[in-house]
Amino acid sequence: MMNSRGFASDNNAGVHPRIMKALDDANSGHCIAYGDDHYTNAAKEHFRKLFGECELFFVFNGTGANVLSLQAMTKPFNAVICADTAHIHVDECCAPERFTGCKLLFNHTPDGKLRIPDIARHLHGIGFEHHAQPRVVSITQSTEMGTAYTVDELREIATYAHANGLLLHVDGARIANAVAASSITLSEMITDTGVDVLSFGGTKNGLMYGEAIVILNPELAENFKYIRKQGMQLASKMRYISAQFDEYLKDGLWLENAKHSNSMAQLLCNEVQKLGIAVTQKVEANEVFAIIPPQTIKELQREFFFYVWDELRSEVRWVCSWDTTENDIERFVAKLGKLINDK
Amino acid sequence: MMNSRGFASDNNAGVHPRIMKALDDANSGHCIAYGDDHYTNAAKEHFRKLFGECELFFVFNGTGANVLSLQAMTKPFNAVICADTAHIHVDECCAPERFTGCKLLFNHTPDGKLRIPDIARHLHGIGFEHHAQPRVVSITQSTEMGTAYTVDELREIATYAHANGLLLHVDGARIANAVAASSITLSEMITDTGVDVLSFGGTKNGLMYGEAIVILNPELAENFKYIRKQGMQLASKMRYISAQFDEYLKDGLWLENAKHSNSMAQLLCNEVQKLGIAVTQKVEANEVFAIIPPQTIKELQREFFFYVWDELRSEVRWVCSWDTTENDIERFVAKLGKLINDK
Amino acid sequence: MMNSRGFASDNNAGVHPRIMKALDDANSGHCIAYGDDHYTNAAKEHFRKLFGECELFFVFNGTGANVLSLQAMTKPFNAVICADTAHIHVDECCAPERFTGCKLLFNHTPDGKLRIPDIARHLHGIGFEHHAQPRVVSITQSTEMGTAYTVDELREIATYAHANGLLLHVDGARIANAVAASSITLSEMITDTGVDVLSFGGTKNGLMYGEAIVILNPELAENFKYIRKQGMQLASKMRYISAQFDEYLKDGLWLENAKHSNSMAQLLCNEVQKLGIAVTQKVEANEVFAIIPPQTIKELQREFFFYVWDELRSEVRWVCSWDTTENDIERFVAKLGKLINDK
Amino acid sequence: MMNSRGFASDNNAGVHPRIMKALDDANSGHCIAYGDDHYTNAAKEHFRKLFGECELFFVFNGTGANVLSLQAMTKPFNAVICADTAHIHVDECCAPERFTGCKLLFNHTPDGKLRIPDIARHLHGIGFEHHAQPRVVSITQSTEMGTAYTVDELREIATYAHANGLLLHVDGARIANAVAASSITLSEMITDTGVDVLSFGGTKNGLMYGEAIVILNPELAENFKYIRKQGMQLASKMRYISAQFDEYLKDGLWLENAKHSNSMAQLLCNEVQKLGIAVTQKVEANEVFAIIPPQTIKELQREFFFYVWDELRSEVRWVCSWDTTENDIERFVAKLGKLINDK
Repeated sequence: MMNSRGFASDNNAGVHPRIMKALDDANSGHCIAYGDDHYTNAAKEHFRKLFGECELFFVFNGTGANVLSLQAMTKPFNAVICADTAHIHVDECCAPERFTGCKLLFNHTPDGKLRIPDIARHLHGIGFEHHAQPRVVSITQSTEMGTAYTVDELREIATYAHANGLLLHVDGARIANAVAASSITLSEMITDTGVDVLSFGGTKNGLMYGEAIVILNPELAENFKYIRKQGMQLASKMRYISAQFDEYLKDGLWLENAKHSNSMAQLLCNEVQKLGIAVTQKVEANEVFAIIPPQTIKELQREFFFYVWDELRSEVRWVCSWDTTENDIERFVAKLGKLINDK
Repeated sequence: MMNSRGFASDNNAGVHPRIMKALDDANSGHCIAYGDDHYTNAAKEHFRKLFGECELFFVFNGTGANVLSLQAMTKPFNAVICADTAHIHVDECCAPERFTGCKLLFNHTPDGKLRIPDIARHLHGIGFEHHAQPRVVSITQSTEMGTAYTVDELREIATYAHANGLLLHVDGARIANAVAASSITLSEMITDTGVDVLSFGGTKNGLMYGEAIVILNPELAENFKYIRKQGMQLASKMRYISAQFDEYLKDGLWLENAKHSNSMAQLLCNEVQKLGIAVTQKVEANEVFAIIPPQTIKELQREFFFYVWDELRSEVRWVCSWDTTENDIERFVAKLGKLINDK
Repeated sequence: MMNSRGFASDNNAGVHPRIMKALDDANSGHCIAYGDDHYTNAAKEHFRKLFGECELFFVFNGTGANVLSLQAMTKPFNAVICADTAHIHVDECCAPERFTGCKLLFNHTPDGKLRIPDIARHLHGIGFEHHAQPRVVSITQSTEMGTAYTVDELREIATYAHANGLLLHVDGARIANAVAASSITLSEMITDTGVDVLSFGGTKNGLMYGEAIVILNPELAENFKYIRKQGMQLASKMRYISAQFDEYLKDGLWLENAKHSNSMAQLLCNEVQKLGIAVTQKVEANEVFAIIPPQTIKELQREFFFYVWDELRSEVRWVCSWDTTENDIERFVAKLGKLINDK
Repeated sequence: MMNSRGFASDNNAGVHPRIMKALDDANSGHCIAYGDDHYTNAAKEHFRKLFGECELFFVFNGTGANVLSLQAMTKPFNAVICADTAHIHVDECCAPERFTGCKLLFNHTPDGKLRIPDIARHLHGIGFEHHAQPRVVSITQSTEMGTAYTVDELREIATYAHANGLLLHVDGARIANAVAASSITLSEMITDTGVDVLSFGGTKNGLMYGEAIVILNPELAENFKYIRKQGMQLASKMRYISAQFDEYLKDGLWLENAKHSNSMAQLLCNEVQKLGIAVTQKVEANEVFAIIPPQTIKELQREFFFYVWDELRSEVRWVCSWDTTENDIERFVAKLGKLINDK
């Protein structure tokens, strides 16, 4: 049975054929469960080549990666500062609050990017037991709005955080797209800027399941194996997550997939702008936010599914994936153009 | 690279080829993420054919299945009655306590099977606010000791539980093995006896990842979608769990795999008994517990890995899998025999 | 040893002499612990005279009253909508998040009062499992800014909440001051408007310790005795909380104390305005917020302690208590006037 | 109104007159709330005279003292080893599990006293992420069975615990009774043996409310102020707890009260034994466990209330208090004797 492609989410896309083959290749005989196997060791080695010294923990999904990262960085009386568009705030059904005990101090931002004043305004009541004590800044790279922090912005936030006794967490569900959009390496973007913990996404960029928690601040790794197990995120047949990451990282598939989806988003942006459509956020990764005539939405969705972001403004979100084709975009834009003209 | 097989755990075994193929077949185009897709619908239909009316929720792993099941059945001031060998007590790093708030009232049993007096002795202080209020009986079928409850035992426990205001949870990480060892159907064993919630295992019996929570008591399903999401157990690319269950259930692969691993365990039991080895538990599923000479263990493990269960008694645990072969057992028993004779 | 009085907090004031005497009177012989005593029954009767049918639970302190109220009203995947000045958000060290699992959706307000649009803007994603599900509106009466909701405003919020599947919690740490400032009764303000649960404060208005949770929506009381016990808020020698409430409620001491502290705040407001001081919030209860010359603060605090509210604006908070005297205010205002003139 | 005395619980007794007077004396003017006051400083000084260097935190009740102590000593993946009669296991409605996330590993003991083998049998799976990691031994002194650990037993447990990477918590709800029954000081019993954290009880021995957490291991105090505040156990009008402890400790009232209740229990034990009643536990503090004819219980309770401990054995518990009189005991024993003879 053939499923068609759309622009709803990179979570809707399937698994890259090379990843599928890696899964198949790993499927022989028995391996020690829970991660004490050679696939896991190999995958960790690839991570260390990309990031330098770090501790690695594979988990099932992005919510798990974010929540367990935050748990490792906090005590229950802490607060986490984030944007009000952050996945941890909007899309995780208060799992962060429930499993860390912490408060999320969310900030409105125009573009999903947190800035120093957004952090600074929460830094009061320090040492005052009545207040939740700020401990973590959590940012998303690339953001939920399709924008990306520059390396200077990341370094500035990390430096400011550390100077104020805070740790920096990066939700990197789309970290590959952020690197792909830049001219720098993963370690330049993450390790060198001073990020403490990174949720490294795989699922949205061609994996079947599996995310990695990259702990760059070694103190935070101390009890992580218990946190992961108790957090219900330890896979028994770990080799199948590890084999995916092995293939994903060993020669740049992660970057290739992300470059592709980014370039498709760029193409989509350019083409819809030619139709006079207003694109509402900078396209710095694989997402395009745009305002389209409300009467075109239902019909357009029928052929290429996507989500309305802000019904009042008729703003929609289109996400490109590792498998989006130029032809998909041509057909989509043609359809949209026709719908606009027809109305 | 070829991995050899052992008797350490059914979690060490790989993925059944038919499951692997089903994953590959599902890998086309885009599907709505998070379960609103035709693979998931199809898998649920198969479950309903086996169990009758029920609510289904797919999760990543066994700990997730158990903990979320218990959360749906309890309030934080409740207690859960179980055996002291229960996976929820011994092998989940107190995830049940942490995520439900409940106390586990564990009981020593000779064979991993809970009996009415084990439950009855905790039924005091009901309505007394100082005491954790017993609310759930949790049993494992087949048990962690390789034994299985008869249908009469299950019915008796369910009836007793319900008569005393308790709910019945079954940890069915190896439910297929229990059914395979019986002459009855899944619905006769689970639905008809009065089980309220079943953690239905797949991973130990040939799946790559993925377990199902089968809610037979419909009131308990009401908020489950939030419990699963907040519990970090909602897969984005759900179709790949669903496609596995679809294949697993559609024409009896689940039962076939379990019958195979059970029969291998029976064979292993018979063969080691011929060597004069004491088998310490009834072999009613796919596990064999036996006492072997301590000096044989290290050498035997080198070729066929397995775990020591009780070092003091020199008791070991051997687990057979869907992929265990008669030849594996012949070679293993021959080796063990040789080691015994050599010493 | 004599302690002087100040304007820092009504928590700094002592215990009203009649309450002290009631404690002494209750101190004879033995009483069943944990609330099964005649003092507790009597206190509950007084509450029911004031509120009509309701369930009552006494706890130790305001944080306990708020957190347990919210726990009774929510499931862990819910959200609570409040003002960003709310005690539950600012002053409880994220106890609400930790003990309920819920997210607090806080709103900036000019005067500590939540309005319908503040609630409405959070009512999206209902039924969508990725979003924390809004379930409670929590307001403070009188507010942390010394303002009070009118009965019409309360009714409007309750009606809106209920129409949208939400419950209404009132943090009434200073509920007596709100009633004292109005021309209506407690039941007109709380019961008749549709409040579901009220944290009824005593400590700030002349009690030694002890707050009451008044549950007006009977379904929410079902498991409350377990919630209180597990929440570490069940007093063993309960009679000493109950005897205080008995005295406090039996003939209007609660209202008399509040009327006094309100009138002292009004006097203070009037007198400082005569000095040309800007009062920044309406004085509708026992608190005065004002902007005073920064150079006067330290010297003034030496004699009459109080807290700076907003250092940047040189805004201070003065709280009057049941024991504040006209002479206190005269001396305070004279001192402030002198400090202003001296500089 | 006069309340009569019974033998149900030391929680049923009232407040010692000296404590009542101290409360009254503290009731003047304003004090900084939350503990920054001279009463609190004075009380802490008395504690330090008794224990040597330590950190002190006052809380409302015994459950709060125990749960917050355990939270300071654990991470959520830890286990706490205790007796199955421990208050933390039996009488706190699983508050310890809910607020620490930890598992309680409870052991059956004949007399409420934990012994080394009870601890040792849980020390496996260390470093194995599937197992809750044992971290705390929690014992009660004097125990819930009216027995007491000797100083040698305490030292042995502390030494064993520390040698195995565990911390020692003492639930001292009746610590005064244990010291009163010994010939040693508080610091010899607690500080010198190596206890890490003590829940120091006051309420059962003549206070109105208030317990102290005595942290002897300074690392465990680091974040305690946040733990207490978030744990809903920070009193606003702290001076009234502190003034009680000041009076209680300053010249030995704590010890005097405990000696009295202990001697009354001894007298009661002796007198009932003369009636041929079997006393089932050593009387080493203020509690007597005895088996009495079932047909005498209801009638005896009518005049002097007490609780049945084990209905099957007709075993009852009698608790003496600071206010129990010799005459109470004479009348009680006479009544019991008469009931026995009458039947």
